[in-house]
Amino acid sequence: MTPWSTVEGGCITSVRGFQAAGVHCGLKAGSELDLALVVSEVPCRTAAVFTTNRVQAAPVLWDKEVITISPEVVRAVVINAGCANACTGQQGLRDAREMARQVALAIRTGPHAVLVMSTGVIGERLDMEKIRAGISAAIQGLSTEGGHEAARAIMTTDTRPKEVAVGVEIGGRQVVIAGMCKGAGMIHPQMATLLGLIVTDVAIGQPLLEQALRQTVEASFHRITVDGDMSTNDTVAVLANGLAGNEELKNEQSEGYAEFLRGLTLVASELAKGLVRDGEGASKFIEVRVRGARTEVEAKQAAVAVATSNLVKTAIYGRDANWGRVICAVGYSGVEVDPDRLSLWFGDLHLVKDGQPYDVDEERALEILSQDEIAITVDLGQGQAEATIWTCDLTHEYVTINAHYRT
Amino acid sequence: MTPWSTVEGGCITSVRGFQAAGVHCGLKAGSELDLALVVSEVPCRTAAVFTTNRVQAAPVLWDKEVITISPEVVRAVVINAGCANACTGQQGLRDAREMARQVALAIRTGPHAVLVMSTGVIGERLDMEKIRAGISAAIQGLSTEGGHEAARAIMTTDTRPKEVAVGVEIGGRQVVIAGMCKGAGMIHPQMATLLGLIVTDVAIGQPLLEQALRQTVEASFHRITVDGDMSTNDTVAVLANGLAGNEELKNEQSEGYAEFLRGLTLVASELAKGLVRDGEGASKFIEVRVRGARTEVEAKQAAVAVATSNLVKTAIYGRDANWGRVICAVGYSGVEVDPDRLSLWFGDLHLVKDGQPYDVDEERALEILSQDEIAITVDLGQGQAEATIWTCDLTHEYVTINAHYRT
Repeated sequence: MTPWSTVEGGCITSVRGFQAAGVHCGLKAGSELDLALVVSEVPCRTAAVFTTNRVQAAPVLWDKEVITISPEVVRAVVINAGCANACTGQQGLRDAREMARQVALAIRTGPHAVLVMSTGVIGERLDMEKIRAGISAAIQGLSTEGGHEAARAIMTTDTRPKEVAVGVEIGGRQVVIAGMCKGAGMIHPQMATLLGLIVTDVAIGQPLLEQALRQTVEASFHRITVDGDMSTNDTVAVLANGLAGNEELKNEQSEGYAEFLRGLTLVASELAKGLVRDGEGASKFIEVRVRGARTEVEAKQAAVAVATSNLVKTAIYGRDANWGRVICAVGYSGVEVDPDRLSLWFGDLHLVKDGQPYDVDEERALEILSQDEIAITVDLGQGQAEATIWTCDLTHEYVTINAHYRT
Repeated sequence: MTPWSTVEGGCITSVRGFQAAGVHCGLKAGSELDLALVVSEVPCRTAAVFTTNRVQAAPVLWDKEVITISPEVVRAVVINAGCANACTGQQGLRDAREMARQVALAIRTGPHAVLVMSTGVIGERLDMEKIRAGISAAIQGLSTEGGHEAARAIMTTDTRPKEVAVGVEIGGRQVVIAGMCKGAGMIHPQMATLLGLIVTDVAIGQPLLEQALRQTVEASFHRITVDGDMSTNDTVAVLANGLAGNEELKNEQSEGYAEFLRGLTLVASELAKGLVRDGEGASKFIEVRVRGARTEVEAKQAAVAVATSNLVKTAIYGRDANWGRVICAVGYSGVEVDPDRLSLWFGDLHLVKDGQPYDVDEERALEILSQDEIAITVDLGQGQAEATIWTCDLTHEYVTINAHYRT
């Protein structure tokens, strides 16, 4: 297989046929960008995954309708930060629909060709006057260079934009996949866990695109956790406009599909890891790998328990090699582990063997925990399956950010 | 029913026939008490509930053996803080057994008449030299006034001892129930969640005592959460020595059993709430009540999700009436709620009705959130069942405590 190459400084407008803009409409304080618009010059095959929260924001309900009705002709995505448009009832739905309609009118298509995403405080109505002015400005500002501004406009407590673009040849044609996403709290697996938008110029059938997205999300966004909370608004969408001109990918056997899937997974994983690196208050990136499990499901279950443990996450923050908390979390994960077979490493330091302290070198442990990226490996000693979850530490800054989020 | 009366300044030695001591043996720094011994002058009917963590500390394994072999003749409980004796393999088991044996020899009984509990850092061996000296000192120090010192000796990150004693007349005899417990992190429902010891002089059959304990724990210790982590050492035991001289309570129909159960629940609930009030870094006590559920199980499930949410807990800490996070947690709790039927109150302030903002009075909300005890009520609008969970806020101090627990 040809390796995918990273497009240096790439963003969603690195993909041919896509324009974008990021503007300030006033939902966020100061002059920060808070409304993003992404438009494809031609209709896109589109797939999306949504929050599994029973309480779903108005834009999620709207997008589900769009994906059901017209997944082959989506032209645009409009995203606002600063207000989640969740718990806003019928009025919220009307507001989401109006956002779609305004964009649709301007680009001469139907409202069901426009996805809407919102992120921010729950339970407040959108200020539609600001939104309308923002959408007008964004339409004026659309450009093939607008990707970076769009990525900044969707940020909430994120400290930096998350974007990535990669390219490869598929069927003799140069294909680009690019994405952007925002976190940075309410991040947990089994959810889309964020707002994420991936665009590509590959030609691909819609059902296959949907299958590829689901598979990709499972290996990326479903592998991260920041604080164990799951949001009302989480959405990851992928738009493929086909302008690369490759022969359409129709099924898993199509030549180039495997490469496309690899590229999509690469983009999604980079975005997901970027989310964790920029998790609320995060000072360290933690990779929790559980191996030696009977099944991948069990491996993931144990890894999620470790990665969600406040006690593990505060210990890492404090550079305290308190590995007992990791073992403890594995123990309550629900996986039927045999304590006497557990092994554990921080980095390459083999701290626990057969359930007991082994090479407990505190000095070396401190060295490992002083780095920005920490690898925790647990071997259950039961089988061959493994899974990896990415998370971050729990810091004073996390508490500061979330104690006063609305103020 | 006669009301149970609180024994002012009561402790476990308020119960006739029980002596206790708390000494410093050196497992904790400075001169803090770190070893407690409780001895009954006669054998006790005994029941206990243990952690459901797959990784179980040596003393838990030992106590399970005791409860299986000789639940009718337990005479003593020895408890150390500073070291959990968990993940210590066969050596750990030998150490736990030796603690029991030393106590048993001194009070002239068999080792299976002695329960052992340990709390503290996971993965380190007990310093048996210190333990042996401590047990000797504790035996010397046993007294009918030693309850308060014992309660202080079992503390880890607790800032104050948790103890309570109540009395009532049963079958014409004065019965006392008293308890002590320690927290303050790794506290989560569906676990004993702590070390807790309750003693009473009631005469009761062992099977009935066990049944009473299970029912009581479900309504008390299983209703609290501090940080969602579950420990390897959690144990709650109850010892009944029968010295009150009442006619033995044999089954649920026995006269006085209902009153005993009420007293036991009262003691356990007060201890459980005390744990939460003294939760690591806690600045506020939060009562989460979910009503209008189809079943109690669902009510509890939704309440646990709210009470475990870091985002809810940090918002309360910041006195931020960010009720959207509560609704969000209910939404991902796994209970099939109908968002349009949700109501929510902070104190008596009706913030959400039919899933939408209702009486959002920020000033009044700030007033409510400025108090030390916060009541959050959610009505699912689906039925008549309800459940209450107690928790605390997530603060900077929690992070500070847990980032450097071992240092």
